[in-house]
Amino acid sequence: MSIEITLDEILKAVPNCDVDGEMDLLPLVGVASLDKAQLGDIAFLGNPKYKDQVAFTAASVVILPKDFIGFPKDGQCYLRVENPSYALALVCRAIEERLFPPPPIGIHSSSCIENEALVDDSVTIGPFCYIENGAEIGANVRLASHVYVGAFAKVGADSRLCNGVKLLSRCELGERVILNAGVVVGSDGYGFDNVAEKHEKIPHLGTVVIEDDVEIGANTCIDRSRFAATRIGEGTKIDNLVQIGHNVIIGKRCLVVAQVGISGSVSFEDDVIVGGQAGFAGHLNVGKGAKIAAQAGITKNVEAGAFLKGNPALPYSLALRIAVLNRKLPDLFKRFAEFDESS
Amino acid sequence: MSIEITLDEILKAVPNCDVDGEMDLLPLVGVASLDKAQLGDIAFLGNPKYKDQVAFTAASVVILPKDFIGFPKDGQCYLRVENPSYALALVCRAIEERLFPPPPIGIHSSSCIENEALVDDSVTIGPFCYIENGAEIGANVRLASHVYVGAFAKVGADSRLCNGVKLLSRCELGERVILNAGVVVGSDGYGFDNVAEKHEKIPHLGTVVIEDDVEIGANTCIDRSRFAATRIGEGTKIDNLVQIGHNVIIGKRCLVVAQVGISGSVSFEDDVIVGGQAGFAGHLNVGKGAKIAAQAGITKNVEAGAFLKGNPALPYSLALRIAVLNRKLPDLFKRFAEFDESS
Amino acid sequence: MSIEITLDEILKAVPNCDVDGEMDLLPLVGVASLDKAQLGDIAFLGNPKYKDQVAFTAASVVILPKDFIGFPKDGQCYLRVENPSYALALVCRAIEERLFPPPPIGIHSSSCIENEALVDDSVTIGPFCYIENGAEIGANVRLASHVYVGAFAKVGADSRLCNGVKLLSRCELGERVILNAGVVVGSDGYGFDNVAEKHEKIPHLGTVVIEDDVEIGANTCIDRSRFAATRIGEGTKIDNLVQIGHNVIIGKRCLVVAQVGISGSVSFEDDVIVGGQAGFAGHLNVGKGAKIAAQAGITKNVEAGAFLKGNPALPYSLALRIAVLNRKLPDLFKRFAEFDESS
Repeated sequence: MSIEITLDEILKAVPNCDVDGEMDLLPLVGVASLDKAQLGDIAFLGNPKYKDQVAFTAASVVILPKDFIGFPKDGQCYLRVENPSYALALVCRAIEERLFPPPPIGIHSSSCIENEALVDDSVTIGPFCYIENGAEIGANVRLASHVYVGAFAKVGADSRLCNGVKLLSRCELGERVILNAGVVVGSDGYGFDNVAEKHEKIPHLGTVVIEDDVEIGANTCIDRSRFAATRIGEGTKIDNLVQIGHNVIIGKRCLVVAQVGISGSVSFEDDVIVGGQAGFAGHLNVGKGAKIAAQAGITKNVEAGAFLKGNPALPYSLALRIAVLNRKLPDLFKRFAEFDESS
Repeated sequence: MSIEITLDEILKAVPNCDVDGEMDLLPLVGVASLDKAQLGDIAFLGNPKYKDQVAFTAASVVILPKDFIGFPKDGQCYLRVENPSYALALVCRAIEERLFPPPPIGIHSSSCIENEALVDDSVTIGPFCYIENGAEIGANVRLASHVYVGAFAKVGADSRLCNGVKLLSRCELGERVILNAGVVVGSDGYGFDNVAEKHEKIPHLGTVVIEDDVEIGANTCIDRSRFAATRIGEGTKIDNLVQIGHNVIIGKRCLVVAQVGISGSVSFEDDVIVGGQAGFAGHLNVGKGAKIAAQAGITKNVEAGAFLKGNPALPYSLALRIAVLNRKLPDLFKRFAEFDESS
Repeated sequence: MSIEITLDEILKAVPNCDVDGEMDLLPLVGVASLDKAQLGDIAFLGNPKYKDQVAFTAASVVILPKDFIGFPKDGQCYLRVENPSYALALVCRAIEERLFPPPPIGIHSSSCIENEALVDDSVTIGPFCYIENGAEIGANVRLASHVYVGAFAKVGADSRLCNGVKLLSRCELGERVILNAGVVVGSDGYGFDNVAEKHEKIPHLGTVVIEDDVEIGANTCIDRSRFAATRIGEGTKIDNLVQIGHNVIIGKRCLVVAQVGISGSVSFEDDVIVGGQAGFAGHLNVGKGAKIAAQAGITKNVEAGAFLKGNPALPYSLALRIAVLNRKLPDLFKRFAEFDESS
């Protein structure tokens, strides 16, 4: 990473920050962790457990919580903010636009936009994209290369579809949605009727609706609903290689980590958090704010606020306790055998 | 979903159905579950547990099992059939063609078909497809956009390859095969020889053969064989994000749910059913009709008809019983400790 | 598989081999396992457990370990080598170039190479590729169709990017790297700050660096780092559908089997081996040469040389023992209940 950002630009990016120390700095040239930062770098204290590193960092700018006690070294500048991690994110957004400048607005000549697609004048469409009739692409949308937008699909304003995304027919994205590379939205649900010893395909006539401010990770698949819509709620963030079955309803602000599998017709209420590789059997309800540990296997409804682990899933602390007792099983069996003999 | 289908068209789609009630209906405009259906909708009773909802549904057409006892309301029509779920699927197929009309036959001008590819006149090939020399594309095949068909690969009649599918060199699809978006067929098997402390790549000279009526889910990967063919048997249905290793043989009519991983050289006999996220170690045989629960880890051969769960996998009912006993371990340890003290 | 390779060509491909038996053979036409090989085929003894099959194989050429005792039949030729599996791999490489001939050098007219990309004259670029400004493509690189190479990304000499690969901006590949179809390198890391009850996206300004001789399996995703580089060490081989989070560092010569999930900021030292579907929580260190069984869940640092299994992960033999004792729990509970009653 090679960047140049001045302290003035940083202060402009981070509102409500208290400045302490050297203000006359050369442009900053990197961002690094406290222990690895060098002269000219920006560093930050995001996790209190690293606070002893602050005094020793060589960083030129250090972003710290408001209540941090300490003094910058000569030539060093402390910025105190409410949320150092987020303040850094704001600085990084300014840097990001330099490192990864968006391509110029316009439609690449190689792309194919059908006549009856509605495409806003402010969009950016990279090479080899194909937009079908009836599709609607809103203001400031950016499609990278090799993107497919199906018939009557909708892409809300300020959304970004990375390379090779497939948004199939009639599916809808809200505003500021990000689909990372290779995402498939609107594949057929996995449903078959067994008729005369053949698995007959059940048509999936529904769609997928993805609300505002959702991000979907690379190569994740979201199947279309049988009748209505598979739905991903506002502000939910889904990681890479996740499977979301037909008819699933995900609430708002959920976090779903990589490789999770959610079977058909599962509902998540708002604020659910799911660790990587966890799986959900079909037709379950997961209550508001529930937390599911990585690799858990959920086969029953989950109450609001529950924290579950394991397969079969148990309350988190019980699962930990049983794991400890499992490790003691060899001893238990041995002592029981002695007991048995002596009795 | 917004559709228009008349009762006459429905009756044409569903053979052998008994009609009861109002026949003079306006065109039907939607399909919904019994409890959510409104005037003008089609609903159906697929699962007996919902049968009490039938009397209260507002649907105009209700598809019911032959032995259902009850009477339609004024203006409502009951259709009694052998298999309501499949009857609905037949209705939905008629609707599907209106909602998702296939593109017109022909080859999009942007696509690139090498001179020595054999492409039937009746195919539909979307934009940005690339078909290599020696490839054969049968009658009525539909390729969506961004599809790749490698050298000497074969696509049987009436097959459908969705957006971004990669069918690599020499791999073969039977008739009526569906590959959902992003599927990779024929990637190199994962095999290396350790020579002088380097992992040397083992060439994979074989292919993948996918038989008639197979469906493969989005972003699933099927590796080519080392010598012969990785094979997916007739009528088998594979879900999204599944991994199928080199040399694997899957029998007929198997069901493999999302995110399952099948290591190299595993064989499934016919009618095997595998729940999501289950995994199979290499070189195993899974007997006819075996059922494997979600997230199971299979490390030994599986007998025909077995039903296994867990890792290590156990007979399903034993696995459930041990899970119950695990939950009682805290109590057992406590009682044993009391015992030990008192003795 | 239909090939033609003469014994002379085989001897040229395999150095240091002892020939015994018939030298005057017709060209060999296939490679098969000992039990399935027919006249005209090549077979090999890779695993000693099949050694009794050697006397009965119909293969015309049999590749055997140096110390194999036995005599070829009439018209049969034995080749004795240090490593029969690798010797066969060398023969197969010669065959591979005939079965899957590389396309001719040059850039397909449909592809789009930006003016300020640096592309070596010796490259092969298939149809519908897009190479952004600042990208560098080294000597003898082969890009299949539909490949994307982002701005300032680098592809080292002799690397091969299969169909639909996305190598995003500023990411770097060493020499002889293979990215199978659908791989995504450089997607955004999964990181959010919770600000005013919204998940605010954390920019990921770093890159991905993939060192020499790495192979990555189909549809695998590797996220870019927050600041520095997510890194895959020299000679490491990663299978299909693997998730590698932001800031992960993988050492040299590691083997990572399909569908493994590695959370952000995990470090693997060299020679780590991970079975399929295993998962790693964030910020862990995995010591040199550690082995992790399939489906394990790793939540703590792993010592060098450890061999772990299960979730929570335990030393392999302890995990097996506890699994055995779990199967005995019904008996233990029963005996304890009897005990309890009788006391």
